[in-house]
Amino acid sequence: MSAGSIFVWELLGTATLVLLGTGVVANNVLRKTNGTGTGFLFVTIGWGFAVFTGASIAAPSGAHINPAVTLGLAIAEKTAWADVPIYFAGQLVGGVLGAVLCWATYKLQFDQHPEPEGTLGIFSTVPQIRNTTWNLVTEIIGTFVLVAWILLTPTFEHGPNGVPQFGNAALGYAGVAFVVLVIGTSLGGPTGYAINPARDLGPRIAYALLPIRGKGGADWGYSWIPVAGPLAGGALAALLYLVLPT
Amino acid sequence: MSAGSIFVWELLGTATLVLLGTGVVANNVLRKTNGTGTGFLFVTIGWGFAVFTGASIAAPSGAHINPAVTLGLAIAEKTAWADVPIYFAGQLVGGVLGAVLCWATYKLQFDQHPEPEGTLGIFSTVPQIRNTTWNLVTEIIGTFVLVAWILLTPTFEHGPNGVPQFGNAALGYAGVAFVVLVIGTSLGGPTGYAINPARDLGPRIAYALLPIRGKGGADWGYSWIPVAGPLAGGALAALLYLVLPT
Amino acid sequence: MSAGSIFVWELLGTATLVLLGTGVVANNVLRKTNGTGTGFLFVTIGWGFAVFTGASIAAPSGAHINPAVTLGLAIAEKTAWADVPIYFAGQLVGGVLGAVLCWATYKLQFDQHPEPEGTLGIFSTVPQIRNTTWNLVTEIIGTFVLVAWILLTPTFEHGPNGVPQFGNAALGYAGVAFVVLVIGTSLGGPTGYAINPARDLGPRIAYALLPIRGKGGADWGYSWIPVAGPLAGGALAALLYLVLPT
Amino acid sequence: MSAGSIFVWELLGTATLVLLGTGVVANNVLRKTNGTGTGFLFVTIGWGFAVFTGASIAAPSGAHINPAVTLGLAIAEKTAWADVPIYFAGQLVGGVLGAVLCWATYKLQFDQHPEPEGTLGIFSTVPQIRNTTWNLVTEIIGTFVLVAWILLTPTFEHGPNGVPQFGNAALGYAGVAFVVLVIGTSLGGPTGYAINPARDLGPRIAYALLPIRGKGGADWGYSWIPVAGPLAGGALAALLYLVLPT
Repeated sequence: MSAGSIFVWELLGTATLVLLGTGVVANNVLRKTNGTGTGFLFVTIGWGFAVFTGASIAAPSGAHINPAVTLGLAIAEKTAWADVPIYFAGQLVGGVLGAVLCWATYKLQFDQHPEPEGTLGIFSTVPQIRNTTWNLVTEIIGTFVLVAWILLTPTFEHGPNGVPQFGNAALGYAGVAFVVLVIGTSLGGPTGYAINPARDLGPRIAYALLPIRGKGGADWGYSWIPVAGPLAGGALAALLYLVLPT
Repeated sequence: MSAGSIFVWELLGTATLVLLGTGVVANNVLRKTNGTGTGFLFVTIGWGFAVFTGASIAAPSGAHINPAVTLGLAIAEKTAWADVPIYFAGQLVGGVLGAVLCWATYKLQFDQHPEPEGTLGIFSTVPQIRNTTWNLVTEIIGTFVLVAWILLTPTFEHGPNGVPQFGNAALGYAGVAFVVLVIGTSLGGPTGYAINPARDLGPRIAYALLPIRGKGGADWGYSWIPVAGPLAGGALAALLYLVLPT
Repeated sequence: MSAGSIFVWELLGTATLVLLGTGVVANNVLRKTNGTGTGFLFVTIGWGFAVFTGASIAAPSGAHINPAVTLGLAIAEKTAWADVPIYFAGQLVGGVLGAVLCWATYKLQFDQHPEPEGTLGIFSTVPQIRNTTWNLVTEIIGTFVLVAWILLTPTFEHGPNGVPQFGNAALGYAGVAFVVLVIGTSLGGPTGYAINPARDLGPRIAYALLPIRGKGGADWGYSWIPVAGPLAGGALAALLYLVLPT
Repeated sequence: MSAGSIFVWELLGTATLVLLGTGVVANNVLRKTNGTGTGFLFVTIGWGFAVFTGASIAAPSGAHINPAVTLGLAIAEKTAWADVPIYFAGQLVGGVLGAVLCWATYKLQFDQHPEPEGTLGIFSTVPQIRNTTWNLVTEIIGTFVLVAWILLTPTFEHGPNGVPQFGNAALGYAGVAFVVLVIGTSLGGPTGYAINPARDLGPRIAYALLPIRGKGGADWGYSWIPVAGPLAGGALAALLYLVLPT
């Protein structure tokens, strides 16, 4: 697949993922929405099926929509290293675009939000308790489960871009959605389960740039953890994959 | 397929969709129901699987059950323009019929509802904050995601009526249900995600006609937004589809 | 299939359905359970996947596990009339057995329940507002949707016992589960969606017989409605099926 | 399959299951998490899709990830008795490992938890009302449903290790997840549905060993019930399977 096509499909898929993922948090956090205060099960279901929708759309490029997945697939020798920067670029631009569309969807609610300085949490992850080591551990474990599942589910057929090709396109990505849903319910408590650098960094850049009334800082001091943790977790999963019996 | 068959299947599918969709809102809003006050996750799950059920039933006509989908498929050259009015007619009549059946299901609860002037929201969407431009933007984005997903999921086989034919009929429409579920959780906060003109206009007509005790107005001033927004969103998705690399 | 086999499989499937379905209500209603007061979404999810589990188990006999389904399939000429009494018998005995197992599961909680006179609602449906005509209407509409979906989903392959045979046995019955889930969320508000005579009458008989401490009456005056309504709804769906274009 | 491979895959699958399953309880019970107090529907959804994820990963060894399943399959003559101890060993070690990873994920929350003496319930099951006979009955019924479903779903193809091989690997284990979900919602009220000795005993050992601040006892007096009950339930299901008509 051409570099341009990879870029376009990853951008579209990641934008869809981030629009729908940040959207459910906006719906939950902002006031004067139908979903305000619905809770964390609501949020995890939203993110789970956001992955389903975004991955389905990005199927032509292998549906990575996550730099940690791309890195894991490259280490596992299922994606060419030369394509990795193109995947990353599409994913990051998609992450920014999705967050901008979320903001447009909830523009009126952002304008009236009584606590606008706390709106970063709609876009990017914020740890419940801040601690470099353990926040990294949490993100590594969550992403490890995601990438290990992608690599280890044994009867997947790995297509030309290194990601499983599913027989039934309409439902194939439901499996990934279920895994992300349960990572959210089960490992998302401490740090908000970034498990995807583009999902966190893209919206953070958007938050810094968007004219959100009364917004707070973008918390750049924390921003490297939801990038480095997921990349490390994806890499570790790929290393496990390489040493396991086939 | 004959015009009569298209009309019948779209009518049946859309009636099922609207009966189950307005039903979950009635269950949530009205008192003396088992589901009163259950919340927005409940509502989005109900609408999601309402789509599953209605789309399964309307499979012979391609399972549009939504004028925005029909328009998008026509622009994408997957449905004949001559059939479009027939689709629209079946969908609209189905929308009215489904809302009437919802009212019959909850007749006793409507009779005793303490705030009958606010029952329009069971039938049609009501924005949380009223603003023509941004309400349109929200509906356009939500419908764009729906129709883009239908068109872009790449390995669908497009049948004679332009809508994906799924290999496993029992579950194929689960994918569409998941997408509508997440559009609800994530983009349904500001305007209640009509994303379907027949789903909004049909029940609005029913509300205006039904003998609901103490009912309020049908809010005709807003009624064009959940028609025009979804049609625009579906058209934009089809235009995107036409310019993307195949 | 022999009458004995039909009886056994329908009994096992219906017992599983009723055990899991009445179980989720017991978990929600009784005190000193992990699920007490979780709410109606919880209940509808439990009943939905109770259908998945019970139908999977009863697959050899066509997975009716519901007299309204059996009647609809007989009218639609997909089940032999001679087998209908055998189906009904297996379903009813299964319904009693499942309710007994539910009681055994929650024995300690039943013993300590502070409002034991209201425990009928764990076993059988109780209308929120009592009215013969409209309670019947609600049950008819709900069952109509269920049986219409089973008959109309067009690419089902109807096996020797008249019920769809799914290609992927592990997941095929998920479609039925989704339909029952949404019937619950959307049409279950007024009467608790019996939509299955065996699911209601079997547990009612069990309630009358079981040594439940302080139990109230079995409400026999209402008991015919969740039998007659579902049978009528199933029959109407079959008549619609017979007149539709194929 | 070699004993070593069985051990590795069962260990990986069970570790994933237990990490995600104990993780959702930790998220729900501990404070300063995103999911604190979300409730039992959240917990059952988490455990359900924990099974999906863990079973997918353990597919090469037949995805038992549960000694009660292994025992049932051995009795049903679908797993060699000689392999049973290897399965058990992998499952138990995996259960310990998964619980340790859960503790690492929530390390900061454990350190600040205001009621640390009650944290056993995050790891292992605790009955709501303590009674040897009826707690056993509840665990037997729950596990019976699980193993009966695995054995009876008729069109499964049983692979070399005795567990169904699904045509669509990406989604095949969703069926098992749905069954465990509904066992949780419906039969999990009294004892917390261990239904898996390794899921209960492994984390109990981890709890006894881990340096959790202020932790209470591991309740060894109860610990045999969530081992013996599930094994008995799995064995009974296998006996039913052997006597049923095929």
